[in-house]
Amino acid sequence: MTERVLSGHLTEKEIEKEVRLKGWVQKRRDLGGLIFIDLRDKSGIIQIVFNPDYSGEALEIAESIRSEYVIDVVGKLVLRDEATINPAIATGKLEVLASSITVLNKAKNPPFMIQDDVNIAEDIRLKYRYLDLRRPGLQETFKLRHQTTQSIRNYLNKNEFLEMETPILTKSTPEGARDYLVPSRVHPGEFYALPQSPQLFKQLIMMSGFERYYQIARCFRDEDLRADRQPEFTQVDIETSFLTSDEIMTMTEEMMKEVVKEVKGVDIQLPLQRMPYDEAMDRYGSDKPDTRFGLELIHVSDIVADSGFKVFKQAVENGGKVALLNVEGAAAGYSRKDIDKLTEFVNIYGAKGLAWLKVEEEEVKGPISKFLSDDEKAAIVDKANASSGDLLLFVADKSAVVYDSLGALRLKLGKDLGLIDEEAFHFLWVTDWPLFEYDEELGRYFAAHHPFTSPIEADKEKLLTDPINVRANAYDLVLNGYELGGGSIRIHQTELQNQMFKALGFTEEEAREQFGFLLDALEYGAPPHGGVALGLDRIIMLLAGRSNLRDTILFPKTASASDLMTEAPSEVSRDQLQELSITLSNHEMKE
Amino acid sequence: MTERVLSGHLTEKEIEKEVRLKGWVQKRRDLGGLIFIDLRDKSGIIQIVFNPDYSGEALEIAESIRSEYVIDVVGKLVLRDEATINPAIATGKLEVLASSITVLNKAKNPPFMIQDDVNIAEDIRLKYRYLDLRRPGLQETFKLRHQTTQSIRNYLNKNEFLEMETPILTKSTPEGARDYLVPSRVHPGEFYALPQSPQLFKQLIMMSGFERYYQIARCFRDEDLRADRQPEFTQVDIETSFLTSDEIMTMTEEMMKEVVKEVKGVDIQLPLQRMPYDEAMDRYGSDKPDTRFGLELIHVSDIVADSGFKVFKQAVENGGKVALLNVEGAAAGYSRKDIDKLTEFVNIYGAKGLAWLKVEEEEVKGPISKFLSDDEKAAIVDKANASSGDLLLFVADKSAVVYDSLGALRLKLGKDLGLIDEEAFHFLWVTDWPLFEYDEELGRYFAAHHPFTSPIEADKEKLLTDPINVRANAYDLVLNGYELGGGSIRIHQTELQNQMFKALGFTEEEAREQFGFLLDALEYGAPPHGGVALGLDRIIMLLAGRSNLRDTILFPKTASASDLMTEAPSEVSRDQLQELSITLSNHEMKE
Repeated sequence: MTERVLSGHLTEKEIEKEVRLKGWVQKRRDLGGLIFIDLRDKSGIIQIVFNPDYSGEALEIAESIRSEYVIDVVGKLVLRDEATINPAIATGKLEVLASSITVLNKAKNPPFMIQDDVNIAEDIRLKYRYLDLRRPGLQETFKLRHQTTQSIRNYLNKNEFLEMETPILTKSTPEGARDYLVPSRVHPGEFYALPQSPQLFKQLIMMSGFERYYQIARCFRDEDLRADRQPEFTQVDIETSFLTSDEIMTMTEEMMKEVVKEVKGVDIQLPLQRMPYDEAMDRYGSDKPDTRFGLELIHVSDIVADSGFKVFKQAVENGGKVALLNVEGAAAGYSRKDIDKLTEFVNIYGAKGLAWLKVEEEEVKGPISKFLSDDEKAAIVDKANASSGDLLLFVADKSAVVYDSLGALRLKLGKDLGLIDEEAFHFLWVTDWPLFEYDEELGRYFAAHHPFTSPIEADKEKLLTDPINVRANAYDLVLNGYELGGGSIRIHQTELQNQMFKALGFTEEEAREQFGFLLDALEYGAPPHGGVALGLDRIIMLLAGRSNLRDTILFPKTASASDLMTEAPSEVSRDQLQELSITLSNHEMKE
Repeated sequence: MTERVLSGHLTEKEIEKEVRLKGWVQKRRDLGGLIFIDLRDKSGIIQIVFNPDYSGEALEIAESIRSEYVIDVVGKLVLRDEATINPAIATGKLEVLASSITVLNKAKNPPFMIQDDVNIAEDIRLKYRYLDLRRPGLQETFKLRHQTTQSIRNYLNKNEFLEMETPILTKSTPEGARDYLVPSRVHPGEFYALPQSPQLFKQLIMMSGFERYYQIARCFRDEDLRADRQPEFTQVDIETSFLTSDEIMTMTEEMMKEVVKEVKGVDIQLPLQRMPYDEAMDRYGSDKPDTRFGLELIHVSDIVADSGFKVFKQAVENGGKVALLNVEGAAAGYSRKDIDKLTEFVNIYGAKGLAWLKVEEEEVKGPISKFLSDDEKAAIVDKANASSGDLLLFVADKSAVVYDSLGALRLKLGKDLGLIDEEAFHFLWVTDWPLFEYDEELGRYFAAHHPFTSPIEADKEKLLTDPINVRANAYDLVLNGYELGGGSIRIHQTELQNQMFKALGFTEEEAREQFGFLLDALEYGAPPHGGVALGLDRIIMLLAGRSNLRDTILFPKTASASDLMTEAPSEVSRDQLQELSITLSNHEMKE
């Protein structure tokens, strides 16, 4: 029996040979007594021809064939006529003259065509995910995901990392996002939690003396989902002992360089740029700046602190700031109406208004021009390095609003004006993060990352006295304006960890109840350690040039955390709940 | 600053060079004004010497050092005196003359010594797992686990498999073992289930056209645990389209050959032995026979069917059987008392008694001898190929009891008598499994493996008429008497799948409710497909020569599914439960 070959492996060398192909019917066409079938397998597409002279009975069978039938075809590989060559497919010069065909399975008419360039509602795609995934674009994305994962592993394996598996059934800890819980049958009234990340386990692995750990780890967060979040996601999880943050960043960027080279064939220059958090905010209004283009924020608070324009003056007086974007050459292209739309856009980010000036040869025009002195205008133009034809867009507000709104506006304009090189990969480390965030509503500090992050040496003294100004020994990796992930040097000493819990408002009892095992472990010779965790799904999204995170996950969930294909979650039986010692609140149970 | 080296990388070439080591203090000894510290890092152990002439201040610091302190030592690598060479460690000819030492972290006195040859209660080991894992034996096991995993991946990657991730939050299906459930917050009253295996997803991946999938997959079963089970375990999960069971077995055994070669340096001969289920039961009384030794079951039902020994006669009359083990040369060594103990042993497996005969030059002796005719005895001796000095041990009972008891006795004797080559790896495929099992109590058939397993072609007709005699197109891989896992060709046609559900007693509605998405998918061009799943934890256990599955899992759970280190599962807050719309039955909730 002829052995099956993949269509993508056929070349002109096999001409006149008998070949066997198995796969799906992409489409069938009947033409002048002949039948043409495009057969699709995982490697591509090839044309099969049935003709009365050669194909005999197979021609009859072919007449019953419809799209997505699974077939087994034997035939002779031949060259197509010049006129029928199809340059759009890899096998376009070839076709198979069928001598026999077997239908391995029939197919109903699919709810959508198995090709990339059709517009299908996402809920239909997800319900029939097994059809959606047959489309060439998604096939490519999951090959890329496979390659990327292996490339990451190759790098880590050769650098003496051990791949290790941490538990999925773990302990619930209230700090952080909301846990998914799993009721225990054996211990009624008790619950496991699915891990939000293997953070504590990977630290315990360091305390176990393994020194270099990694895992392509599934993580879970029961949060209300945004477009770029999933209830379960995958993280490249790395931890090391005895390395500095510099060494961890260097290793991580070497890894990413290899990945991008292997998967995309693109060379990344090392070392990657490193930028303190404060600088990123000041220059880009973002802690994950897209550095593929300029259009940086220009700060003019000092120039307008005493301005006749009250909005500017008051913003500065109230502890806020005034900054602008210089949209070069855009003065002519943006009408008042266009600018009104930009104003609406910055409103979303809390900015009450968007002041503007257009720079001309001799003067600076715009509604606020008359409130500014000539000196002020000259200083602004000078600071903004502006010249005739430029459009200056100002926000004056609390710092957070200025950053948020101008940061978002910058991204919008970058896209609208085509300033972004879509083929480029701009990596960047953002360092020196704040260790704490203050929650006004709850009146307490929270760990900006997690409570195990070490402060930088110089700031340790301020941990309890001036927490908001303590910087973390932490670093985030940013690519094209997306946060790929981040890491830190962890606290490895009991005393510092206790201080950290105290700063977060934990009593000693609370700290012990939740993290007693960690506090114990720190006392038995915990090595200095630190690591990094990168979001694999997002890495794939960016490498694949996709914009929808769900297209990088094989069987993703919707924004309401449902799987439309299997219809999970679903009701379960009363017996199942009884065994778990739980009942539903306000809900009828199924028998 | 001198760069850190691992102790295991030091050789005599580096003699007289300055080196920096970081790691844990294995032990400290003070001897004649000198201090010796054994420093342990992930690569091994090296001796550090502090002396008053060379070490200066470091000697003073060294005086405060205790076991498991984490230290950073700089010194000169030197050769030890002939007399103090320690051949037990790789660096036994070397030592480091310390010039400086920094304590990176202190340690309390650990609850047990960090070395292999100490006897520690397992619950203490698990509570302090991070100390347990520092012991060299476990360090080695997890290196082996890493190597094994990579070796499996390498094989599959080069054979065009794609590694893919299936969901952990899935749909509960009552068929099979008990599910772990996860309450949904967004959909009150509904639950996800953790997957018992990615079975349906990997089939859907085939229906998605990927053709070759694998995953090192976490699986979950909420069962009462035996010594060799864990609530979460890891499975090497493989699925392929268009391959026969023969081809899948061939590929799987090639993979295992590579793994054993790479990890253990042992050559496995291919093809592996393949044995139908019925033969395995007849010859070894087991569906996972340990083929490292003989001592096979010898069937004598036909010889004793009309015997004067009623126990034998009746067993055969009642549809049971009579079989024996010929324990060669054991007649002298086993006293009546010894045999009584073996009788107690087979009682556990339901055998009411253990008849025996000792073969001597001229006669056959034993309590049952007088009930058997000379012809019967001669025929038994002949069939058993017995000779003087052999001990024959009989069980006469229902078939299942004969198999169970003699199968277990065979293993016990194999061990007791040293018949087993503990260094050998005997792989074996067991094929032609029954498709169904009948549950007497519930009065219905269950899928012996799962409801998606295809019957063998010849038996398809009997699916609804004679289910108990339908053989599955399934195969299990056995190593040294352990089931490593198994697989099958799956059902890929709607009609056959519907018949299967019918045979299992599902109504059409029930089948659709639970597996509607699968039945749908089968209708849209499902390719013929099949695969295999192997238990990674058990593979590691056998390759590492361990007997406790928990020693192969980094953070395992106890028989009551508890993590003694983190104390999971644990109580959660009333708020957490309220958000999930569940309450505890008969339990006080935490505030």
